[in-house]
Amino acid sequence: MDFFEVINTQRAMRHLKPDPVPDELVWELLDAAVKAPSGGNRQPWNFIVIRDADTKARIAGWYLDGWNTAYGPFRQAAMASPAIAKTYASADRLANHLAEAPLLIMVTLDPARVAPVTPPGANVFPAVQNLLLAARALGLGATLTTVYRTHEDEVKQLLGIPDSVETMALIPLGYPVGKFGPTSRVPAESVTYWEKWGQAGKR
Amino acid sequence: MDFFEVINTQRAMRHLKPDPVPDELVWELLDAAVKAPSGGNRQPWNFIVIRDADTKARIAGWYLDGWNTAYGPFRQAAMASPAIAKTYASADRLANHLAEAPLLIMVTLDPARVAPVTPPGANVFPAVQNLLLAARALGLGATLTTVYRTHEDEVKQLLGIPDSVETMALIPLGYPVGKFGPTSRVPAESVTYWEKWGQAGKR
Repeated sequence: MDFFEVINTQRAMRHLKPDPVPDELVWELLDAAVKAPSGGNRQPWNFIVIRDADTKARIAGWYLDGWNTAYGPFRQAAMASPAIAKTYASADRLANHLAEAPLLIMVTLDPARVAPVTPPGANVFPAVQNLLLAARALGLGATLTTVYRTHEDEVKQLLGIPDSVETMALIPLGYPVGKFGPTSRVPAESVTYWEKWGQAGKR
Repeated sequence: MDFFEVINTQRAMRHLKPDPVPDELVWELLDAAVKAPSGGNRQPWNFIVIRDADTKARIAGWYLDGWNTAYGPFRQAAMASPAIAKTYASADRLANHLAEAPLLIMVTLDPARVAPVTPPGANVFPAVQNLLLAARALGLGATLTTVYRTHEDEVKQLLGIPDSVETMALIPLGYPVGKFGPTSRVPAESVTYWEKWGQAGKR
């Protein structure tokens, strides 16, 4: 698949079919993830592939609680906004159906393996983005989520993640219901300056 | 260009030719960057494209100072390690030649535009990775750097970045000296667990 087609049609695919995802495809996603750069090439990431129904159900419970706490207060305003209503409804649906995703991938960061002067996220989210793009290239639906972090301690205990390791993202994965891209974004020329902050560039 | 070829051959290209990079290509990089996901699709990123020689020289001075402070103490050990020596020497060369890159792209984050419960990096580094991958697809060399952050206040003042906005990455860009990929990485099966931390998966 053409690189720019992947880039231009990747979007959060939150509604997933229950059909299982073969191991070979999971490994293709992970192979793409670990090709990403990290500070000093220290690769301080780990991945946990979760298919167990009980584990998914427990994480889904915490996720829904976190969603309701963090985003519930915005429901009325969000659903009244034409620009946000569709995304909010889709994210709300995901929060109520997370356990139905055929698999979840938890991404973690070991701070002891992070190179000096690099923000933690610089060492993990390039790999996460590689994984999301590879999912799109393979026809799999995926979403970058972090709402479970309201219950990070419980999630870490459930998965046996050491205290010293941080969780960074949880990616529900499966064959998607609905179509890939295009996405709606503020155009590059509206967020880019030339030479100094505030100086718009000509296109 | 095929998606997986881009993924598999992207690597830090630190040695750049002085040849200028056309504006059209810069916009293609930025178009790819803003296609990335962000929490609640709030897109809290901005980009500053820097070609001015004086601005590059001042940033390069701070970068070199930051490099010497943060990584100088590791020089002897790094250069004695067959696994690290080449990368260290390449990063050291970049630190001493940053001003020669035909352009720098500064990536910033506005915390006021970040969605609840998302780590800051989750909102910017997917876009940075899109930009790096697009550079590789277009035959441009790029590297994710953060060493300038040892002098973040001075860099922000020079570029006129508001106090409330954080800098996240600085990407030197140009036509590369040397060849793209492959990269050396710890294989996915060595950093992936199944169901619980510590349980290796079969490939």
